[in-house]
Order: sequence, then C-alpha cells, then structure tokens
Amino acid sequence: MVTAIDLNSDLGESFGAWTMGDDTAILQLVSSANVACGFHAGSPAGLLSTLRMAKQQGVAIGAHVSYPDLVGFGRRNMDVSSDELTADVIYQIGALQGLARAAGTEVRYVKPHGALYNTIAHDERQALAVINAIQSIDAGLPLVGLAGSRVLELAQEKGLRTIAEAFADRAYHTDGSLVSRREAGSVLHDAQHIAERMLQLITLGGVTSIEGEFTPVKADSICVHGDSPGAIEMARQIRNLLEEKGIAIRAFVGA
Amino acid sequence: MVTAIDLNSDLGESFGAWTMGDDTAILQLVSSANVACGFHAGSPAGLLSTLRMAKQQGVAIGAHVSYPDLVGFGRRNMDVSSDELTADVIYQIGALQGLARAAGTEVRYVKPHGALYNTIAHDERQALAVINAIQSIDAGLPLVGLAGSRVLELAQEKGLRTIAEAFADRAYHTDGSLVSRREAGSVLHDAQHIAERMLQLITLGGVTSIEGEFTPVKADSICVHGDSPGAIEMARQIRNLLEEKGIAIRAFVGA
Amino acid sequence: MVTAIDLNSDLGESFGAWTMGDDTAILQLVSSANVACGFHAGSPAGLLSTLRMAKQQGVAIGAHVSYPDLVGFGRRNMDVSSDELTADVIYQIGALQGLARAAGTEVRYVKPHGALYNTIAHDERQALAVINAIQSIDAGLPLVGLAGSRVLELAQEKGLRTIAEAFADRAYHTDGSLVSRREAGSVLHDAQHIAERMLQLITLGGVTSIEGEFTPVKADSICVHGDSPGAIEMARQIRNLLEEKGIAIRAFVGA
Amino acid sequence: MVTAIDLNSDLGESFGAWTMGDDTAILQLVSSANVACGFHAGSPAGLLSTLRMAKQQGVAIGAHVSYPDLVGFGRRNMDVSSDELTADVIYQIGALQGLARAAGTEVRYVKPHGALYNTIAHDERQALAVINAIQSIDAGLPLVGLAGSRVLELAQEKGLRTIAEAFADRAYHTDGSLVSRREAGSVLHDAQHIAERMLQLITLGGVTSIEGEFTPVKADSICVHGDSPGAIEMARQIRNLLEEKGIAIRAFVGA
Repeated sequence: MVTAIDLNSDLGESFGAWTMGDDTAILQLVSSANVACGFHAGSPAGLLSTLRMAKQQGVAIGAHVSYPDLVGFGRRNMDVSSDELTADVIYQIGALQGLARAAGTEVRYVKPHGALYNTIAHDERQALAVINAIQSIDAGLPLVGLAGSRVLELAQEKGLRTIAEAFADRAYHTDGSLVSRREAGSVLHDAQHIAERMLQLITLGGVTSIEGEFTPVKADSICVHGDSPGAIEMARQIRNLLEEKGIAIRAFVGA
Repeated sequence: MVTAIDLNSDLGESFGAWTMGDDTAILQLVSSANVACGFHAGSPAGLLSTLRMAKQQGVAIGAHVSYPDLVGFGRRNMDVSSDELTADVIYQIGALQGLARAAGTEVRYVKPHGALYNTIAHDERQALAVINAIQSIDAGLPLVGLAGSRVLELAQEKGLRTIAEAFADRAYHTDGSLVSRREAGSVLHDAQHIAERMLQLITLGGVTSIEGEFTPVKADSICVHGDSPGAIEMARQIRNLLEEKGIAIRAFVGA
Repeated sequence: MVTAIDLNSDLGESFGAWTMGDDTAILQLVSSANVACGFHAGSPAGLLSTLRMAKQQGVAIGAHVSYPDLVGFGRRNMDVSSDELTADVIYQIGALQGLARAAGTEVRYVKPHGALYNTIAHDERQALAVINAIQSIDAGLPLVGLAGSRVLELAQEKGLRTIAEAFADRAYHTDGSLVSRREAGSVLHDAQHIAERMLQLITLGGVTSIEGEFTPVKADSICVHGDSPGAIEMARQIRNLLEEKGIAIRAFVGA
Repeated sequence: MVTAIDLNSDLGESFGAWTMGDDTAILQLVSSANVACGFHAGSPAGLLSTLRMAKQQGVAIGAHVSYPDLVGFGRRNMDVSSDELTADVIYQIGALQGLARAAGTEVRYVKPHGALYNTIAHDERQALAVINAIQSIDAGLPLVGLAGSRVLELAQEKGLRTIAEAFADRAYHTDGSLVSRREAGSVLHDAQHIAERMLQLITLGGVTSIEGEFTPVKADSICVHGDSPGAIEMARQIRNLLEEKGIAIRAFVGA
C-alpha cells in the first residue's frame, strides 16, 4: 500500500526584473522543486533566493535543464548536436549545484524542461546526450521523465536511476500516452476532480483514460503547476486530499 | 631559494563558432589555466574540450569569472549589486566545476576577469561580493589578484587563501602599481627582455620600475598571454629561460 | 495658456514568456508610448503586438533605447565606449522603426531608458554618443530628457530637437533637480494629490519643491507609469483631472 | 549574352571581441554583402564599420537574417512559430536598415542565413513567415534563395521579387539540387576549376552535375566565401577569370 508520494513543480522561472510563478506559495505544497538553471529562465540572484527558500522548507531540488533559449522559454525544438547538448546539460547542473551548495542544500535529480523534455521522450540521440551528461557529472542523480516513456528505459539500461512522473492536469490515452494539447479535453481544469484522480492514481495505480478505460500509470512523482493562483489552488487541493487519506507528500529522492 | 613558479594564462575564450587564442599551444607552456565560465566567453562544448586538454596536460584549472557581458567580453565596468555579483560568481564557479568534473579534473582557484578584476582591486563592496561568493561555494578555493592589491588583504582578512600574480609584459611603478595602459611604455614587447625580467622577479623578488628603481613584487604566479602567435612565443621564452635556470613551472595550488 | 499636454509611459517591456505592465490599459491613457527595443526588454513578436495596439489607439511611438543588459533590465550603469553606444542606439532605433513600419506607424522620438537616461543627464561623452546616433539615423527625431538637464541643452546645441519631461510621481528640489530615490519623500503616492500637482505644473509652470518653494519646471511631457494596477489608476486620475480642466492629452510630436 | 553577374558573400560575422572573416579583403571582390543582423552574429559597432566599408566600395547591402541563436551561429534548426519568425525578421531588417542609413547606404535585399535558409527552401510555413516579414517592412526588397527552390516560386506568387543564387564551391545533382554536405564530393576545392565552372554557369546557363550531366542552373548571383585566406583566394580567381572574359561583377539590385 502506497503511503507517500512526491509532488514536483517548476520553480525559479523568473528572470531579472521579470517574475513568473509564486515560488513562496508553491514551496508550501510540493516536496520537489524543479529549479531553472538559466537557459530557459532563472537568473543567479533569483535562483539563489529560491534555493534558500526550498532549503528552509525541506523541499528537494532538481536541475530543470533546457535548450539555450531564453526568448522562447525553452519551449521550441532545437536541433542541437549531441556534444553541445551534453555540455549544455553539464554546465546547467553544475551551475545549480554551485548555487544549491551556497544555499546549504544540494541538487537531488535532473528534469529536462519544455521542448527538451518532450524531445528526449522519443529521440534516442538527444536522450543519450542528456544521459551522458548526468553520468559524467554525477552518476547518482536520477532522471525524471514521463511515466512509460522510452527515455526512462534507456536511462535504466545505461545504469541511471529514474523517476517516472504523471501530470496532474493532463488526460491520458488508454495506451498510457498523454493526450496532445492540441486535442479537446487534453487539459483538465476541475481541481476537486483532479485531486480525486491523483488519489486513484496512487491507490489503484492508474487513471481513467480519455477513452474511458482504466489505464495503468506507474508514477513516482506527480507534476503540479505553480504559475497562477488557480494552479496553486489546484496543488493545494491535491495535497489536502492526499494527506487526508493518509498519503504523505515526500520527495522521492530525499531533500 | 625559489625553485618553482606558476605560469597562468586565460583559456576557453572561444564562443560557439568564434575562436580566440590557441588553447592547445598555451597548455604546453603554462601550469595554470584561467578558464572562462560563459559570462564573458566560453560556450559549454568548447569549455569541456579545453578542460579535457588541461586535464591531459596536468594543468590546474581556475574559474575565470566575469560580469555578464558577452558582447563587451567582460571588459566594461558594470554597476552590479552585491547580491547579483555574488550569485553570478557562484553560478559561474559551479558551472565550471560541473564541466571540470565531467573532464575528470576540478576547479582549483578563482580569478576574476577583465573589468571585474580591475574593479575589485580597489572597490571593497564588489571585492566582498566576490569573496562571499567563493566562501559560500567552496571556502578552500584561493582568489587570484594583483600582487600588492587591497583585494588580497581583504580576502585574507576574511579567511580566504590568495594567490598574488605579476604580469609578465607590464611595466610597474616604483610603488608596485602597474603603469596604466594609457601611458607610453606600459606594455613590454621584447620576449627575451621579458623572460629575463621574470627571472629577476623570481630570484630577486622584484623588477626594475619604469622610473628605474628596483621594486619589490611578491608574486606567486606570473600571468602570460596566449591569444596570438607572438604571445605564445613570449610564453615559450619565459618558460625556457626559467627551466634552464632550474626553476620548475608548477601550479601554485596543484593540478 | 496651455491647452494640451503629452503623457508618456514605458511600454513593450515584456520579454518572451514574461510579461510586464499592462500595455492595453495604459494605451487608453497616454499620448506617447516609449517602446522597448530589445536591449533591456521587448522581444520582436511582443513589440509588434504593442505597436499595432498603439497605432490603433493613435498613440505616438518613441524608441526606448538602453544599454545591452536584459538580466539587469537596463538599470545598471555600464562603461560602454562611445562607438559602441552610438551603434547600439542606432541598431535599436532601426529595429523599432522596422517593427513600427510593419505596424503601419512610425517612430516619432527617442527616449533613453533607465541607467542610460540617468547617465546622459550629466555625462557629456555618453550624451554625445546618443545624440550622434540619433543624428546619423534620423536627425528629425527629438530626444526626450529630464526637464532642465544638461543633455537637453547639449542636444539643442548640436541641432537636435528636444522634449523636456517631468515625472508625475517624483518630488523635486527647489533647484529643479529630482529628489534622489534614496531619500524619504522622493516618490509620491497619493493619486489625487499627484493629479493636482500635474495640473499646477501645466497651468503655473512649476511644482512645489520638497523644501516647500514654488519651483519652475518647464515640461513638454509628463511621464507616468503603467507597470501596476495602482500606477494605471494614477495615470487615469491625472488624465481625468486634466481633461476636466480643459487640457487635452496630445502627443508632443504627433502620432 | 550575359555581360555581368553578381557575386555575394557573408560579412559582418564578427561579434564583439571575436572576429570572423576578413571583411576588408572580401569587399574588394564581391558586389553584394550579406550582412549579419545580430541574431547569429554581428554586434552593432562592428556592423556599422562593415557597412561603412561596403558603402565606400560600392557594394550592395543585404540583410542576412537568422534564427536567434548566437551560440549556434544560426546553424541549428529551431521550431519557431510564424509570428515569432515574422517579427524576428522584421526586427533584424529594421536594425540593419538603421545602421545602413547611418553609414550612408541602404539595405537592398534579404538573404536568410544558415538553418533558416535551408529550412525555408522546403518548409512553406516558415517560408511564408519570412515573406510576410519582408512585405510588411518593405515589399520592394527582393529575397535571395537557392536557384530552383520552392521558396522562390512561393515568394513570386506572393508578389515578391527574388534573386536566385548558385554556390560556387558546391556540387549539384542533375535535378538541380545541391549534393548534401554529408556526401563525398559535395564541396569543391580547386579554385581554378571552380572559376571555370562559374564561367560555364554564366555563359552556358548550367554546370556539370556530380553525375556527369549538364544541369541547367539559372542564377542571378553567385555565393562565394570570405572566411579564410583560401576562400578569399578562390573568390579572387573567380572574379579575375570572369572579368578577363568580359563579364562585369555587378550587384543584381544596385548598390
């Protein structure tokens, strides 16, 4: 019987004078913080401040690595070479490790962001470049990926630990894949329904697919958002329901 | 009697498709490499390649941290806040530590670059921001600064180790300060003369100033350049003369 | 008797996924929009959208040129060379002219942003670099500067038209200079009071200084903010009071 | 009978302290300069200097627009949205127009760079975004593209003028397409042979394909390189042979 689950969210996504998300609020709710590393978002002084708050809240830190694309927020596919991608990922993990050390904490896992996350779910060349990066800087860091995706198998074959994640507000097909954002019904909005769905995911090991079938989803962590008041309220309801049912919110990797 | 001296030079100053300096050539000659960290120069894939070569040559790695100013190559003064500067320096050291680890080596010291180097020689606020950065990421890393400058005293007062450096091709005033680049005679060009001058520095503990007096300069390391064929030839002559006279070229901090 | 005044505000200060200010709301209230040019803020697609709205509202466009410092939002002094500054300003004006043309409108004036604005108020070298930039791309574009500042005289001596501006929410000394933001009372907050103060500025040609004396301030334009709901409310009250008193809100240069 | 041809080359590809190519040398040889606009290369002060030299030599200026990717030199495919691409291209053309005006000259055509050039040769969505950009800033500017490629047809259908170009040092297939750089024999190296090949192109309207057949290539301009001493020598031999045979080197669009 599952007695604990990890909730993760993206943090540190402000940049200089621009703010995004409410890191203070979401840190009260999640157990793991995917912290930007400067390539899609995050300037050093702001990141350091977020890391200090995460340390204080006992939230685990992950390096949220990205393609180098500030203006596109790391959401645009880029055809980077393997050498470039490997070095870019090492650079970002190292930078965040340095800031984390200064904040009295450390980086516990790696989660690719945006277009890089989506691309390595199926592109083996880029997936291997990311896996190589992690192994060459710290082979003990697990890689977060979409539950059921090929990149997790590949990482395990290469000897890396993995963390499979589910998305709280996304619909799934019966084969376990996510419904594309371009399709109707792909994103769920009812916080109460989503909270119950996540309870089902944890206790029954799956969700009801968009086609209406029970679909196994084996997730070590649940991704929630913190970039709007509505998103934070949704995260709060998920956390409250789970705790009410005796499921602790706890980082998969330790904080 | 001095039997060894450190020679340091700036490396990793290419960026993407643009090359600067001949890292392969200069790595044959120096014992310490001040490697750019991405803020004034240095993109991750190129830096990783330079770090691998440095590892192979047994050359010690220093983090050559800078203001965030690629287009100005870190040579323009910037009125950054202390919090920004501290976090920027931590970020850069961390990023280079990550790449160094991937290359099988590690960062051994920190040397500020360009305008930041010059500013912290006299600006206590910015000097303290850099000192705080080093202490919060790794208090064991020494700081490289101009021999005789205030920043080295300040760093020592704060408990940091320091490395005092002399510039091979620069003229000194009798008070130990550098002759400004704006003045005639500030930069020396005769490689044979410079090599002998550095031998004098090491064996006698000083150089002849532009005013013609013997001037004490207590240096732990000598900075040479590698950004032109002439500069590399000058470094070669310095190294050859010193080795001929029984003075080994050896990193001050270990490689 | 003054029957019209220009209200200007900073727009286009979002960047990629990050938003700043409410351009739609403030465009209802001002007659001139200082639009970012990409160096401190503003990415092309967002700028184009802002320019199209400005065109639709009949608001005049100014190029809000800056030092190249996205992470610092152009608020940090930079010791740029005159050649660099001149070329940077030309580049920015040209880029905004291109986007403005695509939006069916055009750039009507130039207003330096942030640290550059403050620096050229007293630094003649940098002031001349900006003046040269404007003259070499379009000598007919007026330069906006602080009412009473040296840069406006200098620009006029060089044959450039100028627009003197006052700040709605700032306190003045009796000599006509702004009270430094570091001093108590430098920034005013009461919207009703500020609106009346601006009415006084327009009708009487001056304001009451922080020392309590009437202080002449000869302004062609009044700068208001749009980066918070409170700021927009303040701009609305100023506009409403002025219109109530028969003073039209009209761009100094035509839209 | 053809009595004149355009030679074009990429210029302004330095960035800050980093130099690339020898703009002074290549400007003696070509009639059209594709000048970088800051997105893959080119910082304003250096661009202004290149534009002044081009003006002095009577060389026509083209805007060499790119994806926003300095570290990748615009050589990596990016999945940008149409709105982003259109605005990015307008911004770049405008910026270069501003600098050109300051240099006493003007932008005469638009040539996409690197990955953008290759992508729009076949990707209609991105091609249309570029075409829209040109039409919205200056519908009179012709678009340079690969001779025989779909983007030129598309541009003409939309009412844009086009300039078809051939590559001096590239092998062609019998269907008129370029031999991929990944295949042996794709890049030619013998300057004398290349010069004769270009003479054949101009006088006979085609080249011998890699399969050994005469292949029609209808080109308004020939692209040569200037980024190495060997490349400049090759451009010189092409120019010399053509002039010897009575073919003038002249910009297709006027300078």
